[in-house]
Amino acid sequence: MPGESKQAVVLLSGGLDSATTLAIAQDQGFECFAMSFAYGQKCHLELDAAKHVARALGAIDHVIVSIDLRAFGGSALTDDIDVPKDRPIPQLHDSDMTIPITYVPARNTIFLSYALGFAEARGITDIYIGVNALDYSGYPDCRPQYIASFEAMANLATKIGVEGRHIRIHTPLIDLTKAQIINLGIGLGVDYGLTVSCYDPNPKTGVPCWHCDSCQLRAAGFSELGIPDPSKIS
Amino acid sequence: MPGESKQAVVLLSGGLDSATTLAIAQDQGFECFAMSFAYGQKCHLELDAAKHVARALGAIDHVIVSIDLRAFGGSALTDDIDVPKDRPIPQLHDSDMTIPITYVPARNTIFLSYALGFAEARGITDIYIGVNALDYSGYPDCRPQYIASFEAMANLATKIGVEGRHIRIHTPLIDLTKAQIINLGIGLGVDYGLTVSCYDPNPKTGVPCWHCDSCQLRAAGFSELGIPDPSKIS
Repeated sequence: MPGESKQAVVLLSGGLDSATTLAIAQDQGFECFAMSFAYGQKCHLELDAAKHVARALGAIDHVIVSIDLRAFGGSALTDDIDVPKDRPIPQLHDSDMTIPITYVPARNTIFLSYALGFAEARGITDIYIGVNALDYSGYPDCRPQYIASFEAMANLATKIGVEGRHIRIHTPLIDLTKAQIINLGIGLGVDYGLTVSCYDPNPKTGVPCWHCDSCQLRAAGFSELGIPDPSKIS
Repeated sequence: MPGESKQAVVLLSGGLDSATTLAIAQDQGFECFAMSFAYGQKCHLELDAAKHVARALGAIDHVIVSIDLRAFGGSALTDDIDVPKDRPIPQLHDSDMTIPITYVPARNTIFLSYALGFAEARGITDIYIGVNALDYSGYPDCRPQYIASFEAMANLATKIGVEGRHIRIHTPLIDLTKAQIINLGIGLGVDYGLTVSCYDPNPKTGVPCWHCDSCQLRAAGFSELGIPDPSKIS
């Protein structure tokens, strides 16, 4: 953008990681457009959380894009497949990769493509996404080599890239553990009580299941820091 | 997919190029899912054309994905900017690239990402898109290096790619002139009378303007072959 301000698009799910990512982008001096997706989630708790997080952290706008990933099938997050519970917490391992049932085909590619379109239309070159190390043990589209490849593609795909301004996909959490992410976010003033992580919350009360992969990772992160999870207290 | 049949996803706009691409994919032995996008076009003529083309060429299904690219702004195809008329026909030149006003930010990236998600959910590894040489004189996302980069990214993004099955983005028209495309399509039985190319048709009658870039390219192609355009006759 012309002028002194620098702007970024930040993918925001309403979860712990993307809330931290938004706080980091703001801390790095960007005015942020938060972008969330309504894609047939089992409930809208996470979109509500995203709205609250965007407001609390001072995003200049919160864009919600409606897409229907259910048409693609094949995932516990969008179909009626049971979310796995009480599994061992995923570990960092890139080889011998097993893909969780909660993986949604090409999800991050579609999300990043929308962010790219939005960014290009506004002359923005910086996009933030909160993928991290623990996630990429199972999700192909959370690995550093995928992000690098998307960035290379984005610079060939767009007017901005062709004109020589470099589009950058920022992944500030990629090498962090959940505890490190939480610690960083607390230092930046993130209110984790606003965030929701559960893959399978109670549809009526919104209370997390505390047993899916995402709940377990979150609990282990707070536990490692010796800090209570504010969403568990309230 | 298991079994003997091979399947592909073919992006189908209702225009001349994508209709030819669908015919080529079928001729190469693929059972084809045609995929079109409703993205705030000025009229729905091209989606109707896509439906007719998909049926006429025997696609096994025609998937229409609704997306709203108008939110991104910046293009004559989706905004109220006047479509340029009677310009010199674009020539093949990769350097000194100028981006036409009709370029939509990240459009092909979003389209291919949806095709990728659809393909992955069904175990399909082949995706066809009808980009061609004349187009890439102005559109960054119609160039061979962009397509190669998207393919590389797709193989890192997906379960299919990680499991070692190679995802391929087919661009059978990429080196062809409009006349060569039409000649090829006629040989494969494409009824070009079903296709629409105009960026700015009469909203009531659907009659093409015959003066936008797309109309001019189409007319020049039929003219070079000495064949009347069936959509001009009817």
